[in-house]
Amino acid sequence: MQRLYENLFYNKQVNEIFTTESFIRYMLQFEAELANAQAKHNLIPPTAAQIIEENCTVSNINIETLISEVAAGGNAAIPLIKQLTHAVKTKDTEAAKYVHLGATSQDVIDTAITLQLRDALKIIEKDLQQLINQLVSLIEVHRNTIMIGRSFMQHARPITFGFKVSCWLDGLLRSKQRVVKLLAEQLPLQLGGAVGTLSGMQDKGLQVAETMSALLRLNIPAIPWHTQRDRFTETATTLGILSGNIGKIAKDISLLMQTEIAEVFEPSVPGKGGSSTMPHKRNPVGSIAILANTQRIPNLVATMLSCMVQDHERATGNWHAEWETLTDIVQLTAGTVHQACIITNGLEVDTAKMCSNIELTNGLIYAENISLALAEHIGKSDAHTLMETLCKEAVDQKIHLKELVEKNDTISRYLSLNDMQQLFSSDNALGLCNAFIDRVISPLI
Amino acid sequence: MQRLYENLFYNKQVNEIFTTESFIRYMLQFEAELANAQAKHNLIPPTAAQIIEENCTVSNINIETLISEVAAGGNAAIPLIKQLTHAVKTKDTEAAKYVHLGATSQDVIDTAITLQLRDALKIIEKDLQQLINQLVSLIEVHRNTIMIGRSFMQHARPITFGFKVSCWLDGLLRSKQRVVKLLAEQLPLQLGGAVGTLSGMQDKGLQVAETMSALLRLNIPAIPWHTQRDRFTETATTLGILSGNIGKIAKDISLLMQTEIAEVFEPSVPGKGGSSTMPHKRNPVGSIAILANTQRIPNLVATMLSCMVQDHERATGNWHAEWETLTDIVQLTAGTVHQACIITNGLEVDTAKMCSNIELTNGLIYAENISLALAEHIGKSDAHTLMETLCKEAVDQKIHLKELVEKNDTISRYLSLNDMQQLFSSDNALGLCNAFIDRVISPLI
Amino acid sequence: MQRLYENLFYNKQVNEIFTTESFIRYMLQFEAELANAQAKHNLIPPTAAQIIEENCTVSNINIETLISEVAAGGNAAIPLIKQLTHAVKTKDTEAAKYVHLGATSQDVIDTAITLQLRDALKIIEKDLQQLINQLVSLIEVHRNTIMIGRSFMQHARPITFGFKVSCWLDGLLRSKQRVVKLLAEQLPLQLGGAVGTLSGMQDKGLQVAETMSALLRLNIPAIPWHTQRDRFTETATTLGILSGNIGKIAKDISLLMQTEIAEVFEPSVPGKGGSSTMPHKRNPVGSIAILANTQRIPNLVATMLSCMVQDHERATGNWHAEWETLTDIVQLTAGTVHQACIITNGLEVDTAKMCSNIELTNGLIYAENISLALAEHIGKSDAHTLMETLCKEAVDQKIHLKELVEKNDTISRYLSLNDMQQLFSSDNALGLCNAFIDRVISPLI
Amino acid sequence: MQRLYENLFYNKQVNEIFTTESFIRYMLQFEAELANAQAKHNLIPPTAAQIIEENCTVSNINIETLISEVAAGGNAAIPLIKQLTHAVKTKDTEAAKYVHLGATSQDVIDTAITLQLRDALKIIEKDLQQLINQLVSLIEVHRNTIMIGRSFMQHARPITFGFKVSCWLDGLLRSKQRVVKLLAEQLPLQLGGAVGTLSGMQDKGLQVAETMSALLRLNIPAIPWHTQRDRFTETATTLGILSGNIGKIAKDISLLMQTEIAEVFEPSVPGKGGSSTMPHKRNPVGSIAILANTQRIPNLVATMLSCMVQDHERATGNWHAEWETLTDIVQLTAGTVHQACIITNGLEVDTAKMCSNIELTNGLIYAENISLALAEHIGKSDAHTLMETLCKEAVDQKIHLKELVEKNDTISRYLSLNDMQQLFSSDNALGLCNAFIDRVISPLI
Repeated sequence: MQRLYENLFYNKQVNEIFTTESFIRYMLQFEAELANAQAKHNLIPPTAAQIIEENCTVSNINIETLISEVAAGGNAAIPLIKQLTHAVKTKDTEAAKYVHLGATSQDVIDTAITLQLRDALKIIEKDLQQLINQLVSLIEVHRNTIMIGRSFMQHARPITFGFKVSCWLDGLLRSKQRVVKLLAEQLPLQLGGAVGTLSGMQDKGLQVAETMSALLRLNIPAIPWHTQRDRFTETATTLGILSGNIGKIAKDISLLMQTEIAEVFEPSVPGKGGSSTMPHKRNPVGSIAILANTQRIPNLVATMLSCMVQDHERATGNWHAEWETLTDIVQLTAGTVHQACIITNGLEVDTAKMCSNIELTNGLIYAENISLALAEHIGKSDAHTLMETLCKEAVDQKIHLKELVEKNDTISRYLSLNDMQQLFSSDNALGLCNAFIDRVISPLI
Repeated sequence: MQRLYENLFYNKQVNEIFTTESFIRYMLQFEAELANAQAKHNLIPPTAAQIIEENCTVSNINIETLISEVAAGGNAAIPLIKQLTHAVKTKDTEAAKYVHLGATSQDVIDTAITLQLRDALKIIEKDLQQLINQLVSLIEVHRNTIMIGRSFMQHARPITFGFKVSCWLDGLLRSKQRVVKLLAEQLPLQLGGAVGTLSGMQDKGLQVAETMSALLRLNIPAIPWHTQRDRFTETATTLGILSGNIGKIAKDISLLMQTEIAEVFEPSVPGKGGSSTMPHKRNPVGSIAILANTQRIPNLVATMLSCMVQDHERATGNWHAEWETLTDIVQLTAGTVHQACIITNGLEVDTAKMCSNIELTNGLIYAENISLALAEHIGKSDAHTLMETLCKEAVDQKIHLKELVEKNDTISRYLSLNDMQQLFSSDNALGLCNAFIDRVISPLI
Repeated sequence: MQRLYENLFYNKQVNEIFTTESFIRYMLQFEAELANAQAKHNLIPPTAAQIIEENCTVSNINIETLISEVAAGGNAAIPLIKQLTHAVKTKDTEAAKYVHLGATSQDVIDTAITLQLRDALKIIEKDLQQLINQLVSLIEVHRNTIMIGRSFMQHARPITFGFKVSCWLDGLLRSKQRVVKLLAEQLPLQLGGAVGTLSGMQDKGLQVAETMSALLRLNIPAIPWHTQRDRFTETATTLGILSGNIGKIAKDISLLMQTEIAEVFEPSVPGKGGSSTMPHKRNPVGSIAILANTQRIPNLVATMLSCMVQDHERATGNWHAEWETLTDIVQLTAGTVHQACIITNGLEVDTAKMCSNIELTNGLIYAENISLALAEHIGKSDAHTLMETLCKEAVDQKIHLKELVEKNDTISRYLSLNDMQQLFSSDNALGLCNAFIDRVISPLI
Repeated sequence: MQRLYENLFYNKQVNEIFTTESFIRYMLQFEAELANAQAKHNLIPPTAAQIIEENCTVSNINIETLISEVAAGGNAAIPLIKQLTHAVKTKDTEAAKYVHLGATSQDVIDTAITLQLRDALKIIEKDLQQLINQLVSLIEVHRNTIMIGRSFMQHARPITFGFKVSCWLDGLLRSKQRVVKLLAEQLPLQLGGAVGTLSGMQDKGLQVAETMSALLRLNIPAIPWHTQRDRFTETATTLGILSGNIGKIAKDISLLMQTEIAEVFEPSVPGKGGSSTMPHKRNPVGSIAILANTQRIPNLVATMLSCMVQDHERATGNWHAEWETLTDIVQLTAGTVHQACIITNGLEVDTAKMCSNIELTNGLIYAENISLALAEHIGKSDAHTLMETLCKEAVDQKIHLKELVEKNDTISRYLSLNDMQQLFSSDNALGLCNAFIDRVISPLI
């Protein structure tokens, strides 16, 4: 049965990789290629390898039985190998002797998880690239869309929406590199036998490992890593950071969708995010899913980090704690990227509302402009004092600061009306928005 | 489909409470009793309530459809109510108007979760009581079973195994009280409508809430708690603490099962924890499952705590992050208690090994006894210096300290051989073991 | 030297309890009362106890030396006892023999921490009571102050500010009870000796423990709790939940202070939260400090939970990890409550802005009122369809829904202008705000 | 005053970088170089820059006052700039106008933290290299030191101690690369002004940023990163992973130091880790400190990850929560690496105990060897059944398996005494220990 929230917090395509059946398939893939590699290096007869490979199919495995036997041995590999051996034996008693030869449960399980990670990370990478592309499009469209920048959720100074999205993109590009690096470097085969020495494969262990790595398209590690877990943890931290980058985007969008701000909206989809009884509502449903995920993922990553303190050559619990935790991190991150693609594809931007919101403070956000211009004439201190007085008046009287500035004799002495116009213009307050945008997107186009 | 690890980390009986189907059943229970309560207080016609209740069956709900629609509204209640309304409508158009009247999605979901918690906590409480009973039995059997006490995993001084288990029990008894208190006090109905004011039920909201509380056997809260989440968090922390108490037991058992120590073993079950290729192994499979769970639960609890910082009258993501997190905490804790029951029911204690392990340090653990006895005669400082010398000799020569003590002239002057015998006896080094045991178990028997 | 952020994230009064010097004082208090209790029960000479007590002063301890020696023994008690013994010895060689008799480092340290917790919790409890009082005042003043309720940060339906604060208060009242219960029940003496059996105090250990508990005004535990840490963890979770309750308040205030919303402000203090160059800014400085703390505390609580899985009779690292973690939790929580007192004492509420914000959606928040009223006449379905159409028109034309409703022939047929007036009034949409307020505050007044 | 545990959990040299005074010095360094860079690009007069730089000394700052004013503005930069401006003004009123021109508080603070990270990471990198060198030495010495490998803390099969240390080293080498990469790539200047656009520096902002980056030897970012925090988080995760790698080593050492195992010991230092009253104890004090740290760090990393979800252009609390958290992570990690250097420098290895421990299971660990050898003659199944029987007998009679094997007729038929000797030899059970060692260390030598 499907999970209740599989369309909300998750990505169905990635979920498929992590079903029980799918995990069994990956474990069987390990067993098949182990036999093939051992046959190649004359550890087992070629015919045995062939029969083993042929029997490495999910249909040979009674999943209910397997699940019920997991508790006895403490992992999924033991009952799997038992059933696989039985299946092979019904075909060829001799071949059955060579199932899982010289390997240990953790070899199968770690490698199967690595294969899952590889396949899931590729989907995440693809979705992430789509997200990046969509953000680039948004930047191009909104390069000159002026909006207020906010610090501590208070109006600060103007920016452009293109600049804001470039900041989002900047973080994502680093996360993309982290994912690419992870895929390239940190997904190795696990093959060590009981204590990591491959003592059960005569002196052919390394050759077998090399062949298996090639067959499974995994890296070959310097040494088995049964209790050196930094690679799995790095997968977790890399996805945790990626999720954080995306959570920031969802946070901004959900804040910008507030009824009072109403500058940006997740794309309209009939029946989505609305409320039949509250017709004005535009609930940030996609952002909510992302924010929920990014609330959960950091603590799952902490579990992976804490699991690294493993005992001796096979850990007493810390290994087992990784299984569902890492799976959850990958699946939640996949859902996070997926939702981010959905909400930024057709993100609605109300540029008029952005413009009108800038004016909400009656020009106070430009006070410093006047102050600086005036300082050249009457000194910084006097300029500052004068502007403080005018700002206070503007607030008290609820009028625009510009009115007071224009009427002020001291100011008029040094600044023309045209000067004032310039100083109160958001266009002139954007600083290096475009330069920064270019620095971010130029490597991409 | 079952979860791969449902027999290892979980408790199947509790898992049943948290299936998608089960959650739907609890939500429907809310809708049925809402209608009944509203009929009782004349908000809706009695016939409408009857038809609604009759239709609140899982068979009316297409679960696949429901799951596929969760993403649009962002929760499971919206598609449920849609389907329920449709089902009622096919029976009675008029009655359909009264489905979910004046309630909000969070009312249904929070209450359904509360009902799940109630039912799961009762099972946990029952299993915990069984665990407590088993520990009491162990204490009674092993009240006088002497073993070494260990600090920083080093031999320190003798204790009894009964004392050790009493320490375990002491923590569990407090956790039991926490669970009992939680069940009694912290499981209230959620019923507030869109913003918690019950504005959609005329002035009858409180009466409806009171009736529903009675029908669902839940407490009635002072005020709706849509964004005051301390009760759910306290459920999480209570279970987190309980898991910690049990994790400590599993830690001790797994350490005591080490090949070199071999004092205590999880009960033998054919095919469990053994290794066909390593026949001497007694893997602590149950302890491993517990240790894995107690590695994960603390960080899930952290998520619940961090989720408390919710915005306004309905939270943007923090509410949603609770759903699977709280569920995981309850299910993992249930599995933890369950495994603890299994491994302490028939725990094997090798009292002979406990005795022989005490002697591993060649009497050094009794050095202080001699030192104290001697101090009365030659002063603390001289006594201490003398014993330090003898201890060093004993270590260097790998002989028993008692031999050196017996041969030492200074000591022989003040202590008889019988004195020495007493001072080197673990029986005389147990302090208040029995007094403390009695303090722990006397309230129970 | 003071900590950089001690005025931002912390409470100076509580910080004093946790200085190195203060901790030494608490440890010395343990040693003094241990001697006194042992003298009372004839384990040591009364004169020795007197001399020990007299020397249990911080001035006898060279703190620099103590700190430099912590690394060798792995805790602060070993060098403390060494220095204390030395100080006593210079007065009376005989008395020096009785320093710390039969106790272990963990006894001193755990008890000293417990005394710190007791004193800190009392301050937190006092501040929390002040916070509660201030919220009650706010509720009384703003019982009828109408504002919009928000779900997912979108306008939903009207509430009162008094109702909103009552929701805050409701959670705090439960947290207050948790703190009170903790202070009453969970702060016991630690006294067990090397392995918890008090074997070094002849058969007088329990009497000594009882006398010490009385002298230190601590509870006496059933059994030493060296590796049963649920009480310290419960301190952590209790404060974690309290912080979460307060974080929710800070979240709301910071959102309500947004430039576009501007309904509520932290009290004005000259020089606080403002910006000389951005004169319109009202930075939510107090809320920021609270939000920062509530971001950190949950994960510190997780560490305390994970530390519970302790080995044998003295833990190898998990005990040590508690020290600074628990201290941080208490200090950050104290700062959190302190900041909450500051920002709610004189909280500025702009009731006019609350009123005008309600109108931002041009009456759409009342659409359901009309729909329900109309349903009695034309059926729920037709009423709903009609209102959907009108709402859409109102949005498209940016006019008030009431205008369209008044002009609509169908509606006019069934509802009088006065009816419409009532249905569009926020006063009539408040539901049980006042009833719920009374349920929360009535036990307090 | 020093921190109580600064010698236990921390590294004093790194602590120096994170004192309040030191942080102020880094902030002043920012202000000095900002002025210099702005002078170079003609934004401010060269004389003003010179005076500003001259006044950027800690002696100009009243730290007590600064600390007391942190609460008002919510950060340390505001009161710093106030005091700095005042100091400059007493020298040159004109120059005072140019202090902190166009920059924002977060620019100073983020850059000061980045400089702290850079300096601390260099020390960590140096210590890590020392740790690596020490492990390489251990590997070379113990390449052929046979010991038992353990899975789930049970004897499994033989390994060498050199192999075990190579596994430790393998993880550390990857962590070393992560630290090096971090230092090279992820430590950029922060310079953006109020909303990241550098609008206060005319069009010279980028030139100023480039010059400052050069002066401070920091990277220049594509765009300001006020609310894109992945770099700081990656610092946290990188150190978290490094700590996990080291925690694994401490876990192994503390387990191997157990009284019953006694194979490896932290180096003997007079007065360290011993107990005057329990002379046999060898407390793993350094490992304890490391294990305590690695219990804490993962959850601090989780806080950093969760802080990434920042609002708009300056975060409301999430930024502030980073400050002490990141500092704690760096300092605890520095302490962790430092302690690891101490305990592995002169690690005592009891090779005789390793040998004797291997024999504890009376040869059962070799049962599979016989089984495999026999399988070639009588088939895998019969061989397995026979060995199961013999193993059971060996356990029941508490005799060595070899005795039974030698006496067994079936086995004697196929295997010579010399064969049996070989099969029961740990030397022949080491698999690829040396090959794996070479794969790990060959890139280093």
